[in-house]
Amino acid sequence: MSLKELIPVTDMIKWRRHLHQHPELSFHEVETAKYIYDVLSGFEHLTLSTPTENSVIAVLKGAKDGETIALRADIDALPIVEEADVEFPSQNPGVMHACGHDTHTAMLLGAAKILSGMQADIAGTVKFIFQPAEEVPPGGAKAIVEAGVLDDVDKVFGIHIFPTIPCGAIGMRTGAASAASDVFELKIQGRGSHGSTPELSVDPILIGSEIVTNLNHIVSRNVAALDSAVISIGEFTSGNSANVIPDTAKLQGTVRTNSKETRLYVRKRIEEIIEHITKMYGATYELNYTMGYSAVMNDPETTELVREAALKVVGEKGIFAAPAMMGGEDFSAYTDVVKGTFFILGAGVAKDGYGFMNHHPKFKIDEAALPVGTMMEVQLILDLLVNK
Amino acid sequence: MSLKELIPVTDMIKWRRHLHQHPELSFHEVETAKYIYDVLSGFEHLTLSTPTENSVIAVLKGAKDGETIALRADIDALPIVEEADVEFPSQNPGVMHACGHDTHTAMLLGAAKILSGMQADIAGTVKFIFQPAEEVPPGGAKAIVEAGVLDDVDKVFGIHIFPTIPCGAIGMRTGAASAASDVFELKIQGRGSHGSTPELSVDPILIGSEIVTNLNHIVSRNVAALDSAVISIGEFTSGNSANVIPDTAKLQGTVRTNSKETRLYVRKRIEEIIEHITKMYGATYELNYTMGYSAVMNDPETTELVREAALKVVGEKGIFAAPAMMGGEDFSAYTDVVKGTFFILGAGVAKDGYGFMNHHPKFKIDEAALPVGTMMEVQLILDLLVNK
Amino acid sequence: MSLKELIPVTDMIKWRRHLHQHPELSFHEVETAKYIYDVLSGFEHLTLSTPTENSVIAVLKGAKDGETIALRADIDALPIVEEADVEFPSQNPGVMHACGHDTHTAMLLGAAKILSGMQADIAGTVKFIFQPAEEVPPGGAKAIVEAGVLDDVDKVFGIHIFPTIPCGAIGMRTGAASAASDVFELKIQGRGSHGSTPELSVDPILIGSEIVTNLNHIVSRNVAALDSAVISIGEFTSGNSANVIPDTAKLQGTVRTNSKETRLYVRKRIEEIIEHITKMYGATYELNYTMGYSAVMNDPETTELVREAALKVVGEKGIFAAPAMMGGEDFSAYTDVVKGTFFILGAGVAKDGYGFMNHHPKFKIDEAALPVGTMMEVQLILDLLVNK
Amino acid sequence: MSLKELIPVTDMIKWRRHLHQHPELSFHEVETAKYIYDVLSGFEHLTLSTPTENSVIAVLKGAKDGETIALRADIDALPIVEEADVEFPSQNPGVMHACGHDTHTAMLLGAAKILSGMQADIAGTVKFIFQPAEEVPPGGAKAIVEAGVLDDVDKVFGIHIFPTIPCGAIGMRTGAASAASDVFELKIQGRGSHGSTPELSVDPILIGSEIVTNLNHIVSRNVAALDSAVISIGEFTSGNSANVIPDTAKLQGTVRTNSKETRLYVRKRIEEIIEHITKMYGATYELNYTMGYSAVMNDPETTELVREAALKVVGEKGIFAAPAMMGGEDFSAYTDVVKGTFFILGAGVAKDGYGFMNHHPKFKIDEAALPVGTMMEVQLILDLLVNK
Repeated sequence: MSLKELIPVTDMIKWRRHLHQHPELSFHEVETAKYIYDVLSGFEHLTLSTPTENSVIAVLKGAKDGETIALRADIDALPIVEEADVEFPSQNPGVMHACGHDTHTAMLLGAAKILSGMQADIAGTVKFIFQPAEEVPPGGAKAIVEAGVLDDVDKVFGIHIFPTIPCGAIGMRTGAASAASDVFELKIQGRGSHGSTPELSVDPILIGSEIVTNLNHIVSRNVAALDSAVISIGEFTSGNSANVIPDTAKLQGTVRTNSKETRLYVRKRIEEIIEHITKMYGATYELNYTMGYSAVMNDPETTELVREAALKVVGEKGIFAAPAMMGGEDFSAYTDVVKGTFFILGAGVAKDGYGFMNHHPKFKIDEAALPVGTMMEVQLILDLLVNK
Repeated sequence: MSLKELIPVTDMIKWRRHLHQHPELSFHEVETAKYIYDVLSGFEHLTLSTPTENSVIAVLKGAKDGETIALRADIDALPIVEEADVEFPSQNPGVMHACGHDTHTAMLLGAAKILSGMQADIAGTVKFIFQPAEEVPPGGAKAIVEAGVLDDVDKVFGIHIFPTIPCGAIGMRTGAASAASDVFELKIQGRGSHGSTPELSVDPILIGSEIVTNLNHIVSRNVAALDSAVISIGEFTSGNSANVIPDTAKLQGTVRTNSKETRLYVRKRIEEIIEHITKMYGATYELNYTMGYSAVMNDPETTELVREAALKVVGEKGIFAAPAMMGGEDFSAYTDVVKGTFFILGAGVAKDGYGFMNHHPKFKIDEAALPVGTMMEVQLILDLLVNK
Repeated sequence: MSLKELIPVTDMIKWRRHLHQHPELSFHEVETAKYIYDVLSGFEHLTLSTPTENSVIAVLKGAKDGETIALRADIDALPIVEEADVEFPSQNPGVMHACGHDTHTAMLLGAAKILSGMQADIAGTVKFIFQPAEEVPPGGAKAIVEAGVLDDVDKVFGIHIFPTIPCGAIGMRTGAASAASDVFELKIQGRGSHGSTPELSVDPILIGSEIVTNLNHIVSRNVAALDSAVISIGEFTSGNSANVIPDTAKLQGTVRTNSKETRLYVRKRIEEIIEHITKMYGATYELNYTMGYSAVMNDPETTELVREAALKVVGEKGIFAAPAMMGGEDFSAYTDVVKGTFFILGAGVAKDGYGFMNHHPKFKIDEAALPVGTMMEVQLILDLLVNK
Repeated sequence: MSLKELIPVTDMIKWRRHLHQHPELSFHEVETAKYIYDVLSGFEHLTLSTPTENSVIAVLKGAKDGETIALRADIDALPIVEEADVEFPSQNPGVMHACGHDTHTAMLLGAAKILSGMQADIAGTVKFIFQPAEEVPPGGAKAIVEAGVLDDVDKVFGIHIFPTIPCGAIGMRTGAASAASDVFELKIQGRGSHGSTPELSVDPILIGSEIVTNLNHIVSRNVAALDSAVISIGEFTSGNSANVIPDTAKLQGTVRTNSKETRLYVRKRIEEIIEHITKMYGATYELNYTMGYSAVMNDPETTELVREAALKVVGEKGIFAAPAMMGGEDFSAYTDVVKGTFFILGAGVAKDGYGFMNHHPKFKIDEAALPVGTMMEVQLILDLLVNK
């Protein structure tokens, strides 16, 4: 019997659609976690635990000793009103599985079912991590790492599904697979005055404007062309009348980077520019700089393992070189501490109706991709813990 | 009997305090106008009219022919909660005569009383203009001019009272005595995107910031050092989250200038900078530029008349050279069409408790200044229509 | 005999034309000083001295005691190739009396001749100061003050001639009559790199550009609209190839202000902006800030004396209110230590061929203005030391 | 006999050292081309031609029909004074083979020698392109393409040698392997004036500064984080005195991009920014924008061929993933018209004395890399035209 024949497709579609109809926001995945727990309870050889709120960890100890490999799915949904053309839409108004975490969960449940049936052949341990709150920093992964779940793990793997990529294609890349995603909030304290007497003011609007223009110089001057960084200001709020120079200005922004060095250097440059421009105009400031998810860093070794598994599952033609992304992903909490690879699963292209990207109200995926994801997860375990 | 002895000081104080206790906002001076009308009704030889809402015009036709001279007082109050240490505070909560218009009115009522008693000696006509809404553009003066009140006027005079200047001192200057005061509101239409993809956006915060910095170059580069202009931005509002580049930005600003040429040139430069910066970044915009009060332009001849009157009323020592001001004043509607002079009356200094400027909640003036203002008004008429 | 009849017009024209034909550059007025010395040697009662290089001081001690009044002329010429349509052009190629100092000198020689003949009537002392090097900082006035020439002086007066003003008109103003004129030179030390690797550079061209734009904000934000300041950058030199980010940039600029407070504040702001922008981009810098001439500050009392003298010499119609100027003038070295007034003498208008401003190669003045200047100088002495 | 044994190492070292001792500048490779021609004349089955100045093309027509494959070496040297520690230094003072083109030539001569001996087994044609002037735009490749040399070519390959990479390692990448390298020169025509009267000027230093700061926004706002672009200004020259606002400013800059779309878009944005900023300040301009080398675009198919050849020549461990580079290379003239791949050959690391990068006066390579390069060239032909 081939691996493909082992995949519990019917169950997986059922699980996935149930989850899709009952989405829960990040940090509120109570029923979702229960459902996962219940499904897992039906499989043999699994030890279940819930080390952090709304997470479920299933441990499958093989018959023989060996490495511990973790497979991860994220389970939370988004605050989006679903507009997708599906027969099983969200029944939780304003909440939607618009990032495919329902499929991530169903695929990993499928893998758990198959692998639990292979316990006797496994030399090592598989940890199935069902993680809440990927969408909202500080994320659910952080707590799981802090709870020690990764302490005995040797390698970790995760999948993300994307429409607009041929269904079942597998993409991977070594190095940064997502961007570090930080945010900052700046309050400039100037000194207001009547608009006709700027000489009595410390003008927070001019200061803010100079900060905006100079922050842009960081990307153009301080980051190498072949490195990647984005600094965007998302808010500039100051004053409310034509005649009065206001006291303060508030700015918010986001910073995306693909390496730890650049991440820290860009932060340092932002701080320097804000410090000197405010000082130079006689203002003071308060800067709250929040380090969000770090960049997922795919290890060359685990990425080669993914490639080899993909060769078996989808063949050479089904593999593509995944580009880096400037989006954030808290899988980085795992790759920060353990070797691992986060890889991409295609789920249909536009001409077949899968043209809306993740987070879009019309986001939809081709369920035919689900068995591929599960096969990849199972194949990795076969390669690492069974057929060694 | 000297001029000073003629001044109805007791009445004036009574009138002034009544007005101070019953302040009304610009364009809502209903009771104030009635009160003025009633007081004027008690004087002989006056023809009263109310050509515009809340205005009162009293015409005193002298026994002989001659020039027509207008004297003007503004009568409106401000939306300020009074904190002044006076025995007759505002009884209209949140409204305050914090710019001294109550004294302007009382002084002109005093002048009307005296001059109406001199009708037989007057060769010419005196127009007493009690004008509403000086504080809020488009101002009350505009409507009065449009109603034709100034059509037969040869010269016009107005007084403004200021604390922080020795009580009774008279200041004047030729040329610009106030600034033209214009405002503009700019809406920048960019294109939003996620903060990680600025290349998909037309970033209104960067565009607004470049507009702010470049508008500042107008004053430093396009206006001569010995000319005067101010451009201040009073509002910059765009976006409300760290991660999203917003679609639009709203800016508001004020422009102060002291000459017609500079006023029009600065406007042209503002329009050019906004047009080119938005175009250069692919945005569109909507600009509402509102021309407010023009600058009061004191005529050399009428200013010399004020100086001569002041020599008689307060002597050489009581005269000071008034500086130009960047504040606005709708007396300019009169000097735009008729020769005239707007002059300054001191009303006490800080050490005596008169240290709070106009528009301050603790604004207070020394009532001993009132007779001086009335004497100035009467003396001007004596010089122009009686003792010629 | 009227004052006018006393003026040695023929001599003055001769002196002036001689000087015009033999112009000498600032700090090189050797023959000019000799010529002046020789002319003065021909007058009685004068004590001559040359306390500083190329200066000539003539002291006329009156028969009676009284104040000491100084009259000053500057004697240096400019490095300009004369193109003026005169019969007595410069015989010193490339040097030209294009600022009228030849006329200042001739007028003061005329005054010296007349006043030396009045010695018996004079109660007090007249000091005739013929000063070199007005055109080039640090100027000739500074050394004269340092030599103690002004120590016993009570009041000082100086004239400047200008074409484009009706011939013989006298202009004056209280307060700032010229601008303080400072210069600075900035060297930015960045770090060069290939143009394709800005991340290895500290880009002095970007830093210089930010300094230029931010220095412009000083005038627009830190200087009141009714105050005056100019900051202009006259040089920006950095790099010489398309592909290489240079190491350094050099900037030069000038600063003009009309009050001591603004002068020092603008300097402080310039220093702050340069310090913070270079620091913020990781560069270092060298700033040489040279304080040039201060602003000539005309005292109200001496200015009133000039007005009274002018009333006698040219009458009310011949007097005009001189505007402030943003040009520099080292007469300020005198008004820094002694009460005095620097006033303006008109020398013909464009329609009569006097349309080229000072420093223009075609600069020309109407010699009919010379007797007026001399009369003003004599009248001031008559008013102060003779007819008191 | 293995491929390795076929390599004429002794000849190649001799050729390479001769070339190293007799370097010639771009477009002046007269003796170099003669030398190459002479060496090639000693091999059988080659048809030699010199279709462009200082180029040598050797055509090897195989016994059977098949594809035409071009192999390219560049032959020019650099204007650098050699400081390398070698026994065979440049005998042409101030000229140096500091970019390894001597080794490129020697390797390709070696390949020509071997392959000419295999003529009977070759099914197809090999074109050996010895190209002048890679270092100086417009480059030597352009003329060769225009001469039609590539017209019948199916695939093209080129090698570049680099120290600081392990000797004999082979690196490759799909897509952009070099950057498009464009330059521009901008002359801003403003209007000068005295520094005290900026209102009479159109200030080219401020305009240039605003252009510099806004050009920097292109990279930060208009280029995606995962795309690459550099804009650097290498010259800003304007004015030469502190007091005078100059008439004009000259700027030069370079632009590096890695895709055709970005290249054209960045140029468009540069033109827009320059146009609008100059217009907005009333200036005119002249912009000379020179498109230099385009980016070498490695085709996936030919790159896979290189990978397969490398597997045979150096094995899996000898292969590395070459990063993109922001440097320019005129091999792009070939990949613009024909499928091809430009790949990297390591030539020793710092600890062994090969720590100075290309263009450094101490640049040196490990000659042990030469046989590897030749083997790669021969292997590609074996794979494509012999062992198909």
